[in-house]
Amino acid sequence: MTLLVALSGWDCEVWAERFRSLLPDRDVVALGEPFDRREVHYAVSWKHPPGALAGLPNLAAIFSLGAGVDHLLNDDRLPDAPIVRIVDPDLTGRMSEYVVLHALMHLRQQPRYIAQQRKALWDDDRFQPSAREVRVGVMGLGELGRDAARKLAIMGFDVAGWSRRPRQVDGIASYSGADGLDAFLARTDILVVLLPLTDATRGILNEDLFSRLAQDGRLGGPVLINAGRGGLQNEADILRALDEGKLKAASLDVFVEEPLPPDSPFWAREDVIVTPHNAAMSAPDAIAGQIAQQIRNFEAGEPLLNVVDRALGY
Amino acid sequence: MTLLVALSGWDCEVWAERFRSLLPDRDVVALGEPFDRREVHYAVSWKHPPGALAGLPNLAAIFSLGAGVDHLLNDDRLPDAPIVRIVDPDLTGRMSEYVVLHALMHLRQQPRYIAQQRKALWDDDRFQPSAREVRVGVMGLGELGRDAARKLAIMGFDVAGWSRRPRQVDGIASYSGADGLDAFLARTDILVVLLPLTDATRGILNEDLFSRLAQDGRLGGPVLINAGRGGLQNEADILRALDEGKLKAASLDVFVEEPLPPDSPFWAREDVIVTPHNAAMSAPDAIAGQIAQQIRNFEAGEPLLNVVDRALGY
Repeated sequence: MTLLVALSGWDCEVWAERFRSLLPDRDVVALGEPFDRREVHYAVSWKHPPGALAGLPNLAAIFSLGAGVDHLLNDDRLPDAPIVRIVDPDLTGRMSEYVVLHALMHLRQQPRYIAQQRKALWDDDRFQPSAREVRVGVMGLGELGRDAARKLAIMGFDVAGWSRRPRQVDGIASYSGADGLDAFLARTDILVVLLPLTDATRGILNEDLFSRLAQDGRLGGPVLINAGRGGLQNEADILRALDEGKLKAASLDVFVEEPLPPDSPFWAREDVIVTPHNAAMSAPDAIAGQIAQQIRNFEAGEPLLNVVDRALGY
Repeated sequence: MTLLVALSGWDCEVWAERFRSLLPDRDVVALGEPFDRREVHYAVSWKHPPGALAGLPNLAAIFSLGAGVDHLLNDDRLPDAPIVRIVDPDLTGRMSEYVVLHALMHLRQQPRYIAQQRKALWDDDRFQPSAREVRVGVMGLGELGRDAARKLAIMGFDVAGWSRRPRQVDGIASYSGADGLDAFLARTDILVVLLPLTDATRGILNEDLFSRLAQDGRLGGPVLINAGRGGLQNEADILRALDEGKLKAASLDVFVEEPLPPDSPFWAREDVIVTPHNAAMSAPDAIAGQIAQQIRNFEAGEPLLNVVDRALGY
């Protein structure tokens, strides 16, 4: 009954130690250490090297350390065990902090006030629309999207949501499918993107989509907030839409290439707020505790929770 | 039955026109125009010149165009008519937008990320505390403070409130009076100030108060957010507390002298976010409509709402 920790970008050994203290009766091995492949029943992954989980005949579950599982599904030698993603109130709350912060920064023109402060300028055109005059559209109504939509509505925004399959969210107008997308975009001043990265969503944030956003809103043009995945966005299209005024501004936490290269044009733009993919970092102890608990429940005969539908990709 | 519009800083004639269209059966005069002083039954004020409302023998009510009424009580020739302040959901919502925005900016280190963006720097120390690890204290639990406290709690912050007189706010620990102030300050990482300006609160934000704030919090030191009145704060003490590390950072929407003079040291500080007293601007149509409605209700025999207690000053 071995748990294999297979991460890249994060420290395997630190995570292995966390699991050893939570599951003292198991063998926990970090990728790179010697282990018996037949003994591995569970794997914990974050961007493991492709193929690293192949040839584990008794693998019963693969746990992703984050909410997104595109890093797993990109491995074409991934074993056919259930993939379990993290659904964690702490991570969900952090994502909503990010989304509400950035929606309010654009509503309240905070980048403008920061620029004016540098010039010691007290603005004489201080009046702003209130949140209820601004329409936010949340793309993706999973755990993260629903929590963000609810909190944006409490802050006063006029919120709608869009998801691939129909979803009801209390107090939020919801649209779905390709049929609902046009009407959703046409009433959206601030587009918040919390979609999973799948074959259906790769590159969805492109010029065609931007041109369908509301152009009659109170912010002087549509605003994009992408806290999902960099692969959702066509970055050349974002830059062109900003230059042409099809987008007024953007907050981007994710990029096609991360870290964002020093010569990226996003850094220098006054109309883009760049953050270093930390909208919702997983709190390591909470995540590890949740995985350990799932393993214990599973062995007591309970079903695994938050299992990914591989066909849908989330 | 004349309504006198007595403003400074705002355009009297624009406001007079608003009231004429809402109360077509009244005479509405702007200060400076000729009028019969005995005919004036109502006055609308925002920072009227001291004495401008004296000698109005039939004055039945004085309406303040904002939530604060310190501008009225500073006039020692103010007639003894009831003072009515604005309690407007739109204004309340705007203030909570400001408070939540600035609390999240400090929580999420947004000024740091803006500075790093200017240097094209992708931070490798990206982990942050979550809202539930940070204690916000709201001073002043009137309409504005209660709404802000509720929304901060929904965003996940650990919120408490303090008010002069005991106040219950659902789900919020509340402290009151001089006796409760020490315990309140000792558990506060972010201090949000929405107090009225009265003899009891003038200069209350001083070195003594700052030194009683929590020094063991997750933000590396206490943060001050003042969206109340500039007169609440001792600005030399704020600067010294920032220099000495008794305060980590501040968001200031109000100042002793407004507009903030170009040579103020606040402009250039990286640890202070300056906004030009626009945390919660009144939406003119909503405010004028509310005052016109109060006049109609009053004449139909109903009591005036939101009347100020002159002894308390709010």
